Parts: sequence; C-alpha cells; structure tokens
Amino acid sequence: MVNYPNKKKNNHYTSMIEGKHNTAHRGMNLEEDINLTNEYYLSHDIAVIHKKPTPIQIVKVSYPERSSAKIVEAYFRTPSTTDYNGIYKGKYIDFEAKETKTLSFPFTNISLHQINHLDKVIHHGGIAFLIIAFTKVNEVYLLDASFMVEAYRKNDRKSLRYETIKEKGHLIRQGFLPRLHYLEIIDQYYCEVFK
Amino acid sequence: MVNYPNKKKNNHYTSMIEGKHNTAHRGMNLEEDINLTNEYYLSHDIAVIHKKPTPIQIVKVSYPERSSAKIVEAYFRTPSTTDYNGIYKGKYIDFEAKETKTLSFPFTNISLHQINHLDKVIHHGGIAFLIIAFTKVNEVYLLDASFMVEAYRKNDRKSLRYETIKEKGHLIRQGFLPRLHYLEIIDQYYCEVFK
Repeated sequence: MVNYPNKKKNNHYTSMIEGKHNTAHRGMNLEEDINLTNEYYLSHDIAVIHKKPTPIQIVKVSYPERSSAKIVEAYFRTPSTTDYNGIYKGKYIDFEAKETKTLSFPFTNISLHQINHLDKVIHHGGIAFLIIAFTKVNEVYLLDASFMVEAYRKNDRKSLRYETIKEKGHLIRQGFLPRLHYLEIIDQYYCEVFK
Repeated sequence: MVNYPNKKKNNHYTSMIEGKHNTAHRGMNLEEDINLTNEYYLSHDIAVIHKKPTPIQIVKVSYPERSSAKIVEAYFRTPSTTDYNGIYKGKYIDFEAKETKTLSFPFTNISLHQINHLDKVIHHGGIAFLIIAFTKVNEVYLLDASFMVEAYRKNDRKSLRYETIKEKGHLIRQGFLPRLHYLEIIDQYYCEVFK
C-alpha cells in the first residue's frame, strides 16, 4: 500500500476545520482513523485493539410488534476508563484519543477517572498513553500516560501546550494504511523497556 | 472479610431459578457478581479488569430544552469481542461470562465473532477464558478459551456437557468478597506458563 503523507497533510485533518460541522467531523475523524488503523492491525495479525462501546444508561426499552428490542430512552454516561484497549506483542495496551483545534490540550478534555485509570494501568505493567490530534497543524502525537498523569495532578496549570507535547510526545506517522502508525512508536520506545 | 461458601451455595444462584423473573435475574447476577469481584480487585490494587459497555447503535438523539442529550432511538448490536478485559500482573486478560440453567453449555450462547476474538487473544499472548455459571448446581467454572475454540470449531456437537466443563475447566471458589475468586485460578494455572 502507498502512503500519501504530503497529500494527506493538506486535505485531511485541516480540511475538517473548514467544514460546516466542525466539531462532529473532527471528533469522528480521529476516531475513524484509529478504528481503521486498528482494523488494519487486526486483519494483519499485528495487534488486537478495539474501541470500547460508548457507555449508555438505558432507561426504557420497547418491543414493537415482533421486531427486536428498541431503546426509546437512554443517556450518555461518563466513561470511567479509556476508549481503547487490547493486546500487542503480549503486552496490555490502553489509551485515550482526543482532538483539539487549538495549540494546547486542555485538561478538561480528559476526566479524573480516566487519569486514574491510566495510572493504574501503568502500575500493573501495561502500556498506557494518549493519542492527541492537533487539527490546526494536522499532527497527531502519542504521549506517554505517565507524563499526562503527573502534569494533570500537579495542578499548576489547566492545559498542556502544543510545544510541550511536541517535546515530550512522539509524532505519529500518518499514512493510507494504516492511517496512524502508532504501534511503530510502541516498538521504538516501549517494547524494549518491557523486555 | 468472611466468606460464606456453604451458606451461599444454598441461596444464591439456585434461588434465582425459583424466582419469578428467572432469565433476567440469572443474567444480571453472574454479571453483577463479576462486576463486584472486579471492583474488589480494582480497589485492592490486584487487577484492572472492566466490563465493556453494551454495544448500541444510536439512531436518534434529541436535546430536550437545556438538559443533556437524550437518546430516543437506539438498538442493541451484536458484540464483536468479549465482555471483559483488562490487566493482571502485567498480563492481558480477556473473557466472556455466560450463565446456563441446564447442565450443558450450548454453543449458541457464544458468537463466532467472540470465538475468533478469544483465539486471537491467545495467539497474541493474552490469557483468554470463559466463566460459565451452572445455575442449577450453583457452580461457576473457568474454562480456558483454547478448549472452547477447539470444541466450537470441531463442529461435531452443539454444546459442551457439564461433565466436560467440570473435567476440563476449574471450579471458581465463591465467597463474599470477592464473590468469585477467579484470579486464584489464573495464578495457579496460567501465570507460571507465562513466566
């Protein structure tokens, strides 16, 4: 498969900013890119990583005629863990993915529950990180969760600057298939630590 | 905390069979017992294992007045993975939990997607298994996924008999806290294999 990093750079994440339904599209696209990447990893027998379903509180279900159950009242619940987890080279992988349109990552983008969850994963020997997409510059970074946990708990600021994430994180190579080569970074920076 | 294995044996799973809302209660209870067990493991810093949310296809969301989003049309989707996963002693853990009121485990209780998923987890070095509760005899077994995958694919029968699961699986000790001591079995039969 051929990668189109340059072409993509000009029309992918950035183009979403110009679209009419910015927020919805931006949010969906990083998620879609990660899902497609995970499908690629799965079908090529590289890793088994899935997005968890959105947690929903079901209040009312109806059974119209003979058809299957129809949920008629439900609400979104705050996730207590992260969106993605799975296994890669025998290692437990756990991460959260977030987009931001500004050149900073506000801590309000992630919940305390998720911070605590990532911290627990590290404590138990897993690989935990964040994938942060800066739509403005069309760059996606992998940031080790330990850095985020520490910064979040320090409580002396309300966000991480783009420059900090650029310095402390790792730029994820974008391509066609997989869209986001994030496991390359795990190979390079994590797997030797765990051996 | 004190365990009440004998007391429980007489009034827990079995009592549900006598209840009026058998199916609903039976299904909820194994799930509840596992959730409570996982909460115990989490709060005692033993393992980080969570139930994945039920996958739901959202069709229509309304935003009544100023309140938060209300889902007004949604449907249950077939899960492509298992219900539970997480990390224990640095190892990736993945399992599905099922109850049966007869003395056999029908293969219709588990989907081909889930069988394939468990197989992939094993292939990538994870610990994969099933937790099967026989409500009639109030016994809960941990059965290695590799045995289930093989039996399922052999296609020469439509279920596993209770006797087979008793022979090939491991009886999970029931208690008060945690309710189902399933990680004991991982310690005993899995962790040394992975060292």
